[in-house]
Amino acid sequence: MEIKVIKIGGKVIDNDKNLNKLLGKISKLHGPVVLVHGGGHAATKLGDRMGVEAPMIEGRRVTDRDTLDIVTMVYGGLINKKLAAGLQKRGVNALGLSGADAGIIRAKKRKNKPVDYGFVGDITEVDAERLSKLLRSGLTPVIAPLTHDGKGQLLNTNADSIAAHVAMALGEKHKVALSYYFDLKGVMNGKKVLNILNTDEYKELRNAGVISKGMIPKLDMGFEALKSGVRSVRVAGHQYIDNVEGGTYLLL
Amino acid sequence: MEIKVIKIGGKVIDNDKNLNKLLGKISKLHGPVVLVHGGGHAATKLGDRMGVEAPMIEGRRVTDRDTLDIVTMVYGGLINKKLAAGLQKRGVNALGLSGADAGIIRAKKRKNKPVDYGFVGDITEVDAERLSKLLRSGLTPVIAPLTHDGKGQLLNTNADSIAAHVAMALGEKHKVALSYYFDLKGVMNGKKVLNILNTDEYKELRNAGVISKGMIPKLDMGFEALKSGVRSVRVAGHQYIDNVEGGTYLLL
Repeated sequence: MEIKVIKIGGKVIDNDKNLNKLLGKISKLHGPVVLVHGGGHAATKLGDRMGVEAPMIEGRRVTDRDTLDIVTMVYGGLINKKLAAGLQKRGVNALGLSGADAGIIRAKKRKNKPVDYGFVGDITEVDAERLSKLLRSGLTPVIAPLTHDGKGQLLNTNADSIAAHVAMALGEKHKVALSYYFDLKGVMNGKKVLNILNTDEYKELRNAGVISKGMIPKLDMGFEALKSGVRSVRVAGHQYIDNVEGGTYLLL
Repeated sequence: MEIKVIKIGGKVIDNDKNLNKLLGKISKLHGPVVLVHGGGHAATKLGDRMGVEAPMIEGRRVTDRDTLDIVTMVYGGLINKKLAAGLQKRGVNALGLSGADAGIIRAKKRKNKPVDYGFVGDITEVDAERLSKLLRSGLTPVIAPLTHDGKGQLLNTNADSIAAHVAMALGEKHKVALSYYFDLKGVMNGKKVLNILNTDEYKELRNAGVISKGMIPKLDMGFEALKSGVRSVRVAGHQYIDNVEGGTYLLL
């Protein structure tokens, strides 16, 4: 059976009402699901409340030690456990995980040159066998955007990247559909949602500056996943999560 | 094989150096382990930093909504993930869990009369089958003092109570040894550590006021666990975790 790797993120994470509606839809999906979640704005809010401001280098946020503690608390604790409890309520046997738990995702601290991003991890290994064992035993892994380096260090890791790597690792032995749900309706060309985006068109739109900065890593990873054998990759608004129509499907 | 249910708590949670030493010892224990951890002082510290003070009623801390968020972040996120990563480093395939994860511990919100403790849960059900399945698949569950009510609500739950209930539930089908490790050397009679404590002696010392307030729920639960078939119950200092000698063994 096809495994759905679903990334949710953006504003929906911060809004309990919308999040509950989304969890209701997720609980009705058929077949095994791996859910990956982003962090929303809760980490920034907590940082503000604690008087901790993540340092910025060249416009990019750096994960210093305090920020790592904050994201561990917010992503691994607050959001992850809220999602687990909310899915349990709806009959889904959710299992909240960071990359350190059951050793599912190992990463390497990003090199500190040219820019030192601090405690940020680039994924080196996903234990797909463990994940599929958990799925077979009826559990729904819910993965926070945190990994570990195997030497005791937790690392802040992009949720889109986690979803892609999990999909690719599971894709080696299973049919996998990867979906990125987010605040826009899909990949946009101005006000129009693209139903389909292939690599040539992607290059064109990117070169023309039509596809925006934040979208590029998501799409790069999506195409990479497709190339490595993930069956389908979709980028769509959260409202389409229970519908095969809507959003943008990537094609090679 | 005997399953060790180990509770760690107190000052060791707040001190990285001591905690690492303890994790080193835990990683060398033989046989399956379920680790339950307390919260240390990190939650109070975070509350202070956020300007949130847990309300007190009759000298007892109340878990209001803000405090529940804080303990979810600190217990379920910061401490639980630090323990998972630290054990992974030492070759233990740790799996950090709250009671909501894989539905392992369900609780009921404590009645709000005579005292309203807020979002505090009393355990109603432990999924021992799921826990033993996780153990059989080579994982070491690391449980944070958080449960859920099955209706989407997370609840703050005493770690001693979690350890006892997990031991009792596993004890129905397995040999289980329950150990509480904490800041004292064991159950004290003045300056003397009691090697053994039976129910009669416990009653006497409690009535004489020799056994202190905070110790009573721990010992009550320890004796309850013994009565329900847990093979051994020990209350001891963290320094004895890799030694069968030291601390206090309970006897009926």
